[in-house]
Amino acid sequence: MPLRNDYDRQNCSLARSLEVVGERWTLLILRDLLFGVRRFTDLHAHLDIPRAVLSARLAALVDQGLVVRRPYGPGRDELLPTDRALELWPVVYGLIQWGDRHYGADGGARRLFAHTACDTDLDASGHCRTCDRMPEPSEIVMRPGPGKPATARDDPVSVALREPHRLLSPL
Amino acid sequence: MPLRNDYDRQNCSLARSLEVVGERWTLLILRDLLFGVRRFTDLHAHLDIPRAVLSARLAALVDQGLVVRRPYGPGRDELLPTDRALELWPVVYGLIQWGDRHYGADGGARRLFAHTACDTDLDASGHCRTCDRMPEPSEIVMRPGPGKPATARDDPVSVALREPHRLLSPL
Repeated sequence: MPLRNDYDRQNCSLARSLEVVGERWTLLILRDLLFGVRRFTDLHAHLDIPRAVLSARLAALVDQGLVVRRPYGPGRDELLPTDRALELWPVVYGLIQWGDRHYGADGGARRLFAHTACDTDLDASGHCRTCDRMPEPSEIVMRPGPGKPATARDDPVSVALREPHRLLSPL
Repeated sequence: MPLRNDYDRQNCSLARSLEVVGERWTLLILRDLLFGVRRFTDLHAHLDIPRAVLSARLAALVDQGLVVRRPYGPGRDELLPTDRALELWPVVYGLIQWGDRHYGADGGARRLFAHTACDTDLDASGHCRTCDRMPEPSEIVMRPGPGKPATARDDPVSVALREPHRLLSPL
């Protein structure tokens, strides 16, 4: 699957990045994979998008080296983010923070993120001020914040994320 | 102009953010405004997109409080990013860095970003290691890096950005 070339006269690396992750839904799929969702059926139930759209987005992510498929049973694959995808964590986190600040639920952040090593909440740029560095996704635990969602979802991923959860660990 | 509601069953703040800045071209427009582009004609020449698309994206950004119009002459407005837009700098910078790393031009980064106060190049997460903080856009100077673009553009913004340039200062 070729790169989209909508931005082909733009020389900036931002344009190249958006050709890979700028499609509708792609960053939400990557968010779920970073959270630890690994199965197509779970992604489908959590994202509530047509199967064909999800399949196309995942195929593009595999093709671009952001996702690998790994067999976990007869005829079944799980989906894992690669290092290239994990490097997008600051972007995903930045958009979550910005959305919380300006369009968030009443009462504050919907989810809180802390560095597991020291239990310090990450700052707005994703840094741990106790350890003076930016933890990797695998070092971060997410828990529900004070902000309540407008609607309570009951798919398996939404239910599982009502408890504290370490990023990347299977959901 | 209402928010897009493609993601209306998604409770995550990432989905809310993408409703505001996830449209094709919107992050590239915000990049240019952060770089210091202020006029419609300059945006149009630099982005090389249809005027109607640019007008629609700018109208949405004004409506969402990310851009303000300010008269600078008879019948002419300039476009300025608001604080809400400036807070997206870590996201824009993160996508530039990720694009440079994985899809960049031969020879390295296309653009380099340094903290003006100490002349230290920013790290991959946008921090200044000398000052141990994340500089605001107005404190950052951008200069051409070793990576050469595939095609040399000759619009006024592309030409101006061949010299070092402080973010947000008018182009």
